[in-house]
Amino acid sequence: MGQSDEFDLAKSPGQLLHRAQQFAADHFAKAMPKGERLTQRQFAVLAATAANEGLNQSKLVKTTGIDRSTLAELVARMAEKDFLTRTKVRGDARANAIHLTEKGRAAFETALTGAIDADTAILDALPKGKRNNFLKSLTRIASTIEQAEAARKAEKKKAKDAAKKALKKARKAKKAAEKLQKNAQKTPET
Amino acid sequence: MGQSDEFDLAKSPGQLLHRAQQFAADHFAKAMPKGERLTQRQFAVLAATAANEGLNQSKLVKTTGIDRSTLAELVARMAEKDFLTRTKVRGDARANAIHLTEKGRAAFETALTGAIDADTAILDALPKGKRNNFLKSLTRIASTIEQAEAARKAEKKKAKDAAKKALKKARKAKKAAEKLQKNAQKTPET
Repeated sequence: MGQSDEFDLAKSPGQLLHRAQQFAADHFAKAMPKGERLTQRQFAVLAATAANEGLNQSKLVKTTGIDRSTLAELVARMAEKDFLTRTKVRGDARANAIHLTEKGRAAFETALTGAIDADTAILDALPKGKRNNFLKSLTRIASTIEQAEAARKAEKKKAKDAAKKALKKARKAKKAAEKLQKNAQKTPET
Repeated sequence: MGQSDEFDLAKSPGQLLHRAQQFAADHFAKAMPKGERLTQRQFAVLAATAANEGLNQSKLVKTTGIDRSTLAELVARMAEKDFLTRTKVRGDARANAIHLTEKGRAAFETALTGAIDADTAILDALPKGKRNNFLKSLTRIASTIEQAEAARKAEKKKAKDAAKKALKKARKAKKAAEKLQKNAQKTPET
């Protein structure tokens, strides 16, 4: 019971973030017609593309903070829905240049009103002198998340590489053992 | 195009909140077995009840910051799933005393580990000297949201009451007019 005695909903950063985020998301959603509402992630992809037409997926990961595999699916779905186009880049088979379609730009412009509205509502809740520090802290959290994510991926890759190496070594050892066994069977008993 | 020129994803409080919240939510979810994951809102209800067994719905609204109609549905669903019990309070037909079931308490204790983990991860992303101010700002945003919500509801009620009053007046006027018309018809032409 020690943990639950110490936990206070009203002071939990996770809970407070959730409430503030919910408020922003509601403001954001209200600006769009029902049935055509973008998620904040979809909006982030449109905004990043609008600001930098022709960017590739790596750049999108960096700008939106969405992890690579989630983003790949998101971009594919948004292309299907005719918000984006992806065109092959000459000389790089894996890279796509991403552009907004007309529909994508229109959706972005509508959602933008909601995003600005939400941002204003959040900042208005704070005294002027506190706004800058609050934003700095949020930015710091976002960049820490990215670094942690990158470190986690590097760690995972390292573990995978080590496992691969160990497997290769084990296979080699097995082969050598099999050879020894064969030779032993061939050698006539004395 | 003015708006979109000014908008910067990396400086948008709404987007930054979304990223930080996503990070907290991921940490929170990881502590729970898949298929039995609580949402942050469900967790808030369990935590508020654990801290104050027997509380009523109004108190829950106040503690969790969830609006009344959303909360009513949430509590009903959680009672169906055997996380909570609601018992009638003597002398107040509308109030229920809410308690955790054994299942509810177990779910709370498991999720609590995730909530504390998420909270630690968020605060660890900030230098020690910035943590307190960040929490204060988040708390301020949460309380501003509540006040705005309360004001919006009061405004809505006021408008509804005014409409009701106007309707009553109009009906009365109609009746009076009908009476006048009837009398006019009864009066022989001169």
